[in-house]
Amino acid sequence: MARAPTLCVLLLSALSPVLTVTEDVNVLVFVPLNDSFLFSYARVAPALRYAQERLRADGSPFSGLRFHVHFGDSDCVNAALFSLVERSCAHRPDLILGPVCEYEAAAVVRLASHWGVPVISAGALATGFGAKDGEYSQLTRIAPSYVKMAQTFTAMFAHFSWRSALLVFEDDKHERNCFFTLEGVYHLMGEHSIRTVSVSTEEPLNVDELLQNIYDTEVVIMCMAADKIREVMLAAHRRQLTNGGCMFFNVELFNASSYGNGSWRRGDEHDDEARQAFAALNTVTLLRTVKPEFQSFSIEMTKSVQQSRLYDCQDCGNVNVFVEGFHDAMLLYAIALHEAMKNGYSKSNGTEVTARMWNRTFEGIAGQVSVDVNGDREGDFSLMSMTDREAGTYEVVANYFGVNGSLQLLPAFDPEHFTLRERHKTRADTP
Amino acid sequence: MARAPTLCVLLLSALSPVLTVTEDVNVLVFVPLNDSFLFSYARVAPALRYAQERLRADGSPFSGLRFHVHFGDSDCVNAALFSLVERSCAHRPDLILGPVCEYEAAAVVRLASHWGVPVISAGALATGFGAKDGEYSQLTRIAPSYVKMAQTFTAMFAHFSWRSALLVFEDDKHERNCFFTLEGVYHLMGEHSIRTVSVSTEEPLNVDELLQNIYDTEVVIMCMAADKIREVMLAAHRRQLTNGGCMFFNVELFNASSYGNGSWRRGDEHDDEARQAFAALNTVTLLRTVKPEFQSFSIEMTKSVQQSRLYDCQDCGNVNVFVEGFHDAMLLYAIALHEAMKNGYSKSNGTEVTARMWNRTFEGIAGQVSVDVNGDREGDFSLMSMTDREAGTYEVVANYFGVNGSLQLLPAFDPEHFTLRERHKTRADTP
Repeated sequence: MARAPTLCVLLLSALSPVLTVTEDVNVLVFVPLNDSFLFSYARVAPALRYAQERLRADGSPFSGLRFHVHFGDSDCVNAALFSLVERSCAHRPDLILGPVCEYEAAAVVRLASHWGVPVISAGALATGFGAKDGEYSQLTRIAPSYVKMAQTFTAMFAHFSWRSALLVFEDDKHERNCFFTLEGVYHLMGEHSIRTVSVSTEEPLNVDELLQNIYDTEVVIMCMAADKIREVMLAAHRRQLTNGGCMFFNVELFNASSYGNGSWRRGDEHDDEARQAFAALNTVTLLRTVKPEFQSFSIEMTKSVQQSRLYDCQDCGNVNVFVEGFHDAMLLYAIALHEAMKNGYSKSNGTEVTARMWNRTFEGIAGQVSVDVNGDREGDFSLMSMTDREAGTYEVVANYFGVNGSLQLLPAFDPEHFTLRERHKTRADTP
Repeated sequence: MARAPTLCVLLLSALSPVLTVTEDVNVLVFVPLNDSFLFSYARVAPALRYAQERLRADGSPFSGLRFHVHFGDSDCVNAALFSLVERSCAHRPDLILGPVCEYEAAAVVRLASHWGVPVISAGALATGFGAKDGEYSQLTRIAPSYVKMAQTFTAMFAHFSWRSALLVFEDDKHERNCFFTLEGVYHLMGEHSIRTVSVSTEEPLNVDELLQNIYDTEVVIMCMAADKIREVMLAAHRRQLTNGGCMFFNVELFNASSYGNGSWRRGDEHDDEARQAFAALNTVTLLRTVKPEFQSFSIEMTKSVQQSRLYDCQDCGNVNVFVEGFHDAMLLYAIALHEAMKNGYSKSNGTEVTARMWNRTFEGIAGQVSVDVNGDREGDFSLMSMTDREAGTYEVVANYFGVNGSLQLLPAFDPEHFTLRERHKTRADTP
């Protein structure tokens, strides 16, 4: 008889609706009201509503989780931190989503980690955030970090036996996206011979000086504004550096749709030359998957933005990796909290909930999402090259899959294009 | 008769005790409990008590200001920010003193400036804090910043017509004191030809590689640990680079007493050679003034530390620039608040109080303190050179005074020593 109460509890938990955990969850979301950001409120809010609706739908195992979503402005400087501090005096949030920008995220994640509050960011992509044993312990990254992107390069370097690289990045000294992007490459390429060149956003590009650095480098990896990329490629072409003696790459993670086929074209007198120059330029970008559910999500986003009419944001219906990320963040947290609660933990044990988001694969809105043991999402990336030199059009020629570290060469892949040729190592061919 | 009330008020304010303003002031001080810091609690707390006692002494115009001083730990990472956030929910402090470390100070000053709470730091010496029109609007710096120190170099470069410099700094990637120190020099030397070399704290010094950079540089300015400085000077001496073809400086701001006469001496077989090498090394350090009051302050500090016996801190009685700074910070705030209140403002108008600390000269504990229009203390620096090559002893040979930007050459100054000589510009003399 001594065991009867335990048995009762077991029976109850196995048969009764207690299986569906119920809880109120206060979510604080930091996104910019300013629509110039790809992850602005107007873009992200509909995705979060969509996620909430799916989670509370009848039959969903998460229908007992009532999410109360509050928004705080993010200005990519300090606004999110100030807002967090002021909103947390009475009650700390159970979950923080965002901020995306590196410096602002750093401050928020430090404080949240100190409090044990989980943070899921679709940004915070810089290398430093990978140190989860310290001040970023509660951070889960739902978009692939710059180091994940950099794996695409290490895979290519291994495949093609390249040894040296020049990293050219534009540094605005503010958000520093390109600095952080190539920092990820630098971080992973310790075994190779790497040099870096920083290009100021404010000053005109000194192409001559920059190209001096190219002469003894096999691979040039750039992250800059499209106009600067074109300037470099035109100058390199004129110096006959685009004949295969050097590989050119640019990294274009978030504007993949605006990049590509037409980016050499400006309607100026250099278009024809630029098209030829860009034949030597390859682009690393995010691999986007599309599944049927994603279409309805995408349609819903457009509708939602149109209906609200509150925000004048023309492309807000377009779903980008950040919008996807915020959606999937809600889902991932729900899965983890649900599991934690079934195991007897409460939402206030942030460390326990965070741990259950890591080392987990689940179905996100656009496809499978894998979060590694360090709480960072695995990434898949595409390599694009010009496949029609006459038309100047691009195709995806290879994919890199982060989960298994494989490089998949597609039919459009031309090995010749990626074979380094001998070149004169003198500087005599400088004009 | 219409003017009578105004007259009454004037008479009252001129004659009555209302002149002595009364107010409770909550001060939050962030200093490390860890005594390995020169600005630890054990060192700073007695100086603040001393300042409080002077301020409330009978006859002091500030005796009506009742300072309530609370301490928060500072770990040079995030502790001060976390503490500030948690302590400010109920009541924000009226004044924050510290933190000293750059990164920790940045976070605290941003939040305090957002709230309009004045911060006086004896640190936060990095160049970036000079931007008071933005996120550091409430920061007053009571110790001379690295840019102020750098003025000593620009004055010397102008005086001796030097044009090029190599900045060699040790970077621990944590507090980064030497990085920030020479960043100040870099910031001010825009017109000169400047190169930088970063030396890792964790890795052994690659002297050969470092000296390759010296060959076409007139002046080498270093900020590194004493052992690394000695290693570089020994290597430079062996390569005959210490014959006047190149000027060598190191910057040693805070350990001036431990530097100087004996720093070439290690008791090893290289001492004699090191003494010869160090004849070419000049040191820029803080100019310390001593006035009679300072002696009694200094004695009081020692006594106070001995009496408390709470902290095992052997040199805590020694007064350094940080300890002075915290003392003078209290004084400066009292002067500014007193003036603001006499003009009808309250302590809660932090911007008004801060403004009254700037562009002001007052008597600090060790001498006159001038805060410039940007809220940054002017600095005086000394240049030390070896004046007895046999004994290997140093003397101050010149002083730089920040207030008027003058370079004062002392009798011990030897112009010959600072005259650049021709040298072979080939690399053939590398061993």
